Amino acid sequence: MSSHYRISLDAMGGDHGLSVTVPAALESLKKYDDISLILVGDEAQITEHLTQHSAADNPRITVRHASQTVGMDEPPALALRGKKDSSMRIAINLVKEGEADAVVSAGNTGALMATARFVLRTLPGIDRPAICSQIPSNNGHTHMLDLGANIDSTAEHLYQFAVMGSELTRAIDGIEEPTVGLLNIGQEDIKGNEQVKSANRLLKAGHLNYIGYVEGDDIFSDHVDVVVCDGFVGNVSLKTIEGLAKMLSNELKKHFTKNLLTKLMALVAMPVLKALSKQFDPRSYNGASFLGLQGIVVKSHGGADSFSLANAISVARKEVIAEVPQKIRHRLQALVDDEQQAKAS
Amino acid sequence: MSSHYRISLDAMGGDHGLSVTVPAALESLKKYDDISLILVGDEAQITEHLTQHSAADNPRITVRHASQTVGMDEPPALALRGKKDSSMRIAINLVKEGEADAVVSAGNTGALMATARFVLRTLPGIDRPAICSQIPSNNGHTHMLDLGANIDSTAEHLYQFAVMGSELTRAIDGIEEPTVGLLNIGQEDIKGNEQVKSANRLLKAGHLNYIGYVEGDDIFSDHVDVVVCDGFVGNVSLKTIEGLAKMLSNELKKHFTKNLLTKLMALVAMPVLKALSKQFDPRSYNGASFLGLQGIVVKSHGGADSFSLANAISVARKEVIAEVPQKIRHRLQALVDDEQQAKAS
Repeated sequence: MSSHYRISLDAMGGDHGLSVTVPAALESLKKYDDISLILVGDEAQITEHLTQHSAADNPRITVRHASQTVGMDEPPALALRGKKDSSMRIAINLVKEGEADAVVSAGNTGALMATARFVLRTLPGIDRPAICSQIPSNNGHTHMLDLGANIDSTAEHLYQFAVMGSELTRAIDGIEEPTVGLLNIGQEDIKGNEQVKSANRLLKAGHLNYIGYVEGDDIFSDHVDVVVCDGFVGNVSLKTIEGLAKMLSNELKKHFTKNLLTKLMALVAMPVLKALSKQFDPRSYNGASFLGLQGIVVKSHGGADSFSLANAISVARKEVIAEVPQKIRHRLQALVDDEQQAKAS
Repeated sequence: MSSHYRISLDAMGGDHGLSVTVPAALESLKKYDDISLILVGDEAQITEHLTQHSAADNPRITVRHASQTVGMDEPPALALRGKKDSSMRIAINLVKEGEADAVVSAGNTGALMATARFVLRTLPGIDRPAICSQIPSNNGHTHMLDLGANIDSTAEHLYQFAVMGSELTRAIDGIEEPTVGLLNIGQEDIKGNEQVKSANRLLKAGHLNYIGYVEGDDIFSDHVDVVVCDGFVGNVSLKTIEGLAKMLSNELKKHFTKNLLTKLMALVAMPVLKALSKQFDPRSYNGASFLGLQGIVVKSHGGADSFSLANAISVARKEVIAEVPQKIRHRLQALVDDEQQAKAS
């Protein structure tokens, strides 16, 4: 095989463990013939699940044993110190050791970030990794970061997030100069807290396609490709989106199942409702990128089903093909070079 | 009239000025026979609009002339200093002078807050006013604050917001002990920034019905009545809600108007779609309360239509009936008394 992308999968991670990870792995292999997967976790259990799916001898699957599992609520520091043979840790180690090109896990977010950061280290010029995800928007999607890796972000961190988000978007969506907006509570220069104002100055002076401040509703507009914010704001905003979407979808169902008449209406309207729910299916947006690390790490929603987890695997595959960490590294190096040149001249 | 609630209306405020404020005033008077309205603004123009609606001699309308108007994008400090005869300022003055029980404006938010704070002053024990609004939730609505009056909030400010939101909810919804949640990016005690952690401690030690940390998706759940956060996070979250709701509603329309077949489907499904859009009609949630002031101030969305602005007027009416500022003042005094008693014993 000429191009063959190797992705390690934390097979024990997520709320449903192997009953989701194994089917997701098989779906992904069916979908992409240019990937192979390393399933990391309890070897006996993995083999049992593979056998159930008549996939025990699939040549594109390798099983790597790990004796421990990180609990979904386990404190990150404990997981980092006490679970050196966890499926999560071993799956990340494989990237470090060059045996895998990317890792995907549906496990504990905090533990995954802490472990990935410890094992893979950040890229030169990056102080803090950030979590970036796609949010469905008017004409496609927006990339938003940070979604919760950091609590307090300085202006420099926000600037680094902008660089990382910009490179991810360029690599994934093929947009040469993605538009970058800084999330604020108004469009005017005087608005916002000190970090945001200061980041605004850095971004204006920088080389990104920076369009200035954007507000919460702009996340869904088509004039911004990358929305930058600190992890607290980003996480609240993301959870707000998830909560509202879930409530509206539940209420729609409730209204359409009220009585026989509304059920008949639903039946008639079904194709439209299906098209709409497909367009905004959160499962199609599953897969958050941990950016700023010396390696590709994609986090799946803990409650993901196999369709959803397969989507996270496809995000990892795209990042491998696009060589996202290398692109971020080059962009940061170019910025440093520019600054030095500017100082010298 | 035994109970007669007098509300002053900034008749020149909002994107549409008198063409919305006058009809909204008339709708409100029709809806509630226990209110009277003072329309503040250009007297000739107001009278002209009233005459157009055959309401120039309505005994429950008074017109108060104001020679200036605050622009929607005018810097708050300029409006405060330079527009002492603006419709906004005069409308607020009427509350200060006891001629009105509440003021409603669809004008410039920043200018309204700055002017209201300057004219009415904050309640004893309140450092900063906050903006509180109702957000539709699973089983009714949630009150959320602060939605943008403050950028950086200390733990004490967040605690005061909790007290104010709790009193508003008790007064408006008649819930004896509203549940209060503090917006954070996780449920565990270790999560969050320093302000949030410290506010969590204050709230745990306090007398409110505090249920601990909540996340963005909990805004729409039915287990929390009041969601407390700083103004930056609250504003982003609110705008995110507005943006997502607008996009989904547009997409629904787009899908249903794609071709003749989908249009027929829409026709069949219309009653359900109408019920749903009525349930979540943002116009029914228009009217944000400025809490913590020595007077009742309600801010309408700038782009409000008359139905929507009438809703803001009804929010003001409810606050007058419930005597919200007095209730907040008493609750704060009771807290101070408790603390002194605790110290003395």
